[in-house]
Amino acid sequence: MSSEEATIQQEQLDLKKPPEPEPEPAGPTSVLPADGGVQPSAAAAAVAADDVAPPSAEETTFRALVLTGHGGYDKIKVQVKTQVKVPLGDGDVLVRVKACGLNFAELMGRQGLYDALASPPVTMGMECSGVIEAVGGDVADRTVGDRVMVLSSSGLWQELAVVPADQTFLMPDAMSFQEGAALPVNYITAHMMLFEMANLRPGKSVLVHMAAGGVGIAATQLCQTVPGVTVFGTASASKHQVILDGGLSHAIDYRTKDYVEEIRNISPKGLDIVLDPLGGSDTQKGFNLLKPMGTIVVFGAANCVTGQKKNLLAMAKTWYNQLSIGTMKLMQANKSVSGFHLGYLTDLALIRHTMDTLMDLYVQGKIKPRIDSTYHFEEVADAMRRMHERQNVGKVILLPELKEEEEKKEEEEKEEKEQEDEEKEKEEKEQEKLAEAKPEEVKADQG
Amino acid sequence: MSSEEATIQQEQLDLKKPPEPEPEPAGPTSVLPADGGVQPSAAAAAVAADDVAPPSAEETTFRALVLTGHGGYDKIKVQVKTQVKVPLGDGDVLVRVKACGLNFAELMGRQGLYDALASPPVTMGMECSGVIEAVGGDVADRTVGDRVMVLSSSGLWQELAVVPADQTFLMPDAMSFQEGAALPVNYITAHMMLFEMANLRPGKSVLVHMAAGGVGIAATQLCQTVPGVTVFGTASASKHQVILDGGLSHAIDYRTKDYVEEIRNISPKGLDIVLDPLGGSDTQKGFNLLKPMGTIVVFGAANCVTGQKKNLLAMAKTWYNQLSIGTMKLMQANKSVSGFHLGYLTDLALIRHTMDTLMDLYVQGKIKPRIDSTYHFEEVADAMRRMHERQNVGKVILLPELKEEEEKKEEEEKEEKEQEDEEKEKEEKEQEKLAEAKPEEVKADQG
Repeated sequence: MSSEEATIQQEQLDLKKPPEPEPEPAGPTSVLPADGGVQPSAAAAAVAADDVAPPSAEETTFRALVLTGHGGYDKIKVQVKTQVKVPLGDGDVLVRVKACGLNFAELMGRQGLYDALASPPVTMGMECSGVIEAVGGDVADRTVGDRVMVLSSSGLWQELAVVPADQTFLMPDAMSFQEGAALPVNYITAHMMLFEMANLRPGKSVLVHMAAGGVGIAATQLCQTVPGVTVFGTASASKHQVILDGGLSHAIDYRTKDYVEEIRNISPKGLDIVLDPLGGSDTQKGFNLLKPMGTIVVFGAANCVTGQKKNLLAMAKTWYNQLSIGTMKLMQANKSVSGFHLGYLTDLALIRHTMDTLMDLYVQGKIKPRIDSTYHFEEVADAMRRMHERQNVGKVILLPELKEEEEKKEEEEKEEKEQEDEEKEKEEKEQEKLAEAKPEEVKADQG
Repeated sequence: MSSEEATIQQEQLDLKKPPEPEPEPAGPTSVLPADGGVQPSAAAAAVAADDVAPPSAEETTFRALVLTGHGGYDKIKVQVKTQVKVPLGDGDVLVRVKACGLNFAELMGRQGLYDALASPPVTMGMECSGVIEAVGGDVADRTVGDRVMVLSSSGLWQELAVVPADQTFLMPDAMSFQEGAALPVNYITAHMMLFEMANLRPGKSVLVHMAAGGVGIAATQLCQTVPGVTVFGTASASKHQVILDGGLSHAIDYRTKDYVEEIRNISPKGLDIVLDPLGGSDTQKGFNLLKPMGTIVVFGAANCVTGQKKNLLAMAKTWYNQLSIGTMKLMQANKSVSGFHLGYLTDLALIRHTMDTLMDLYVQGKIKPRIDSTYHFEEVADAMRRMHERQNVGKVILLPELKEEEEKKEEEEKEEKEQEDEEKEKEEKEQEKLAEAKPEEVKADQG
């Protein structure tokens, strides 16, 4: 990890006097709690932990990634929280977090550009996977040991999280924790945009910007569940092979080519659907590329995020160029403009319905999250930098486990494996020896 | 008819030197010809007809409704056109028009508010029904005698129309000409808005403004093809019974009640779909009424049309209040804004596909145009006034046939019927007489 950017802090925590002020988010309120982790649970009380004294038997400590202020990568710190063990509230479950997803909204949140995130200090994290360690009252369909994915507006980047059971989703047996952490936000976003807002049907054409990103890969896979869909994608040239292998029809290097021109060359009449995470002038370009009856879904403003910190010029430019279109023009063009952001979506029933559909597709092998890379909590700055600089092909995953621990574990596993291999070898040799000694008997057995 | 508003004129027509200048429409070009009637057909040449001399055997005359300038009801005149009989162009058919549909776009076109209509003088009319009288070369699937509906951007309000065969749609046997003239524009509009743009699915809620209008009734019927859809509709109180009988769930008198409040009382979470033909501040209200993931489809600006002539104040007010929404706001709300206008739609394949679906629904008895009233060409001002003043419940139909002719025909039919009735009565009496004379035989037959 880059130690100058993420530092570990010991935190004193008393939830009865919340140390983290949590003002109302400026945007619409989400059903997902503003800080979906341990803190908001009414039953989960924590007491001040002594810097020196080790936690008592009644207490538990865990690590969390906390946004301490808006700005650069150094604003997110690994903090150790101490919590008294108390019964869970009705409807809640305690999740031991195994892996977390990193999303663009968190890059924007760090810069202070995402108003659905509470003001700092706030534990970040919209999605994770893990194992249920305890179940509160009034929870019928979850038990200890269940492997689950979790969605929240924040608060999931920590080793232990108390969350409402209905924000957890059972993982299929074949799904790894990393896949479970990579799936919810990207695939729900892609699915709702394509099938709820844009009405994807056979034979349609789709443009996916940032096609090598988490949503881009999810959208490409989902487009392949419908016959005859053509998918255009923008990404830098080095990523083309991977995304073409993933099912993209046409990869366009937006750094060296005018993607509008490229698309017009291949599809002169334009496109049915544009998924736009960029905002600014790209939204206008996408709108113009639409065929009649086409839809553009704007789901981000990545063009706002140009440097490590809030860039007023980039913001101004993005806002200035932001598409604001009158209904008369929409009528004359027979077009639709949609906006989507899961962080603002309050319809939990629709989210659950979509997750059911996605789980069916996963089990059928039709979708599979692609993991780009994994970083430990203390490496969060490197993780963010990778996403920010658009180096990732697929999902960037954060692991709560300490790197040293993992390395130690890997070492142990290696040793274990070596020992196993040795034993196996020994056994095989003995078997061979045995076989050589009694060839007739073996033959007889085979007969 | 109101003779001060519509006058019959004799027109001299030479298509080689077109008397009607047809500048490019200001909006997007439609596949439907700017004047889809007799004039644009390359093969159909007409020569100057003498005002006095009767048409020769090689000529045919027919009546047409021509917009002579922008303004009030008196700007549309019945004109008699004379045309030389020449072979039809490839792909064209000649249609004897039986009934025409009146649309809101034509009210706006008369006022100069609809830029898809060519400048006057221009023959109006976007839809009609009729019988094919002649078929040009290269037309495989139409024959003389076929009963068809026709769509065009204009030019169909005339007794005879030359149109591309692929803008004609075969009518089911059970469909009357009036129904055929009432169906295309309203039902294609309603279907595309509900199923292409708004993705109507079971259990959704829909608001239909002007629920007693042509599109309103079509949308209400189409909503009933999907299980569990709740349809709210606005209309004046006198029309409520009819539209409730037609399947509307909740009728709201917009003249005496605040429809936003009424809907919030019944459906506090709001609506999934709003169909908005009004524009102006009603679009903003509709947008606010949407649930997350909801869609508003704007398909008109009826609020612009307040008086008989262009009203600059109403226009300014409608434009000022016109919804122009930024994509950031759409993202935070998770909503969609669409614009639809069939007059600007260029995708003939999609139109044909939709018509196929609609014909299936018609044959299954799931949709049936409601005819509000019929007017003869010379009564076009009364027809427009009825629609303008929102007195209609269903479609207003225009008939090319002269009123006197129809009355004469009705007289003849009445006489014919009376004669038939007389004969039938006579026959029945004879039968009775016969039965009375041989009661046993009848009994034996029954045994």
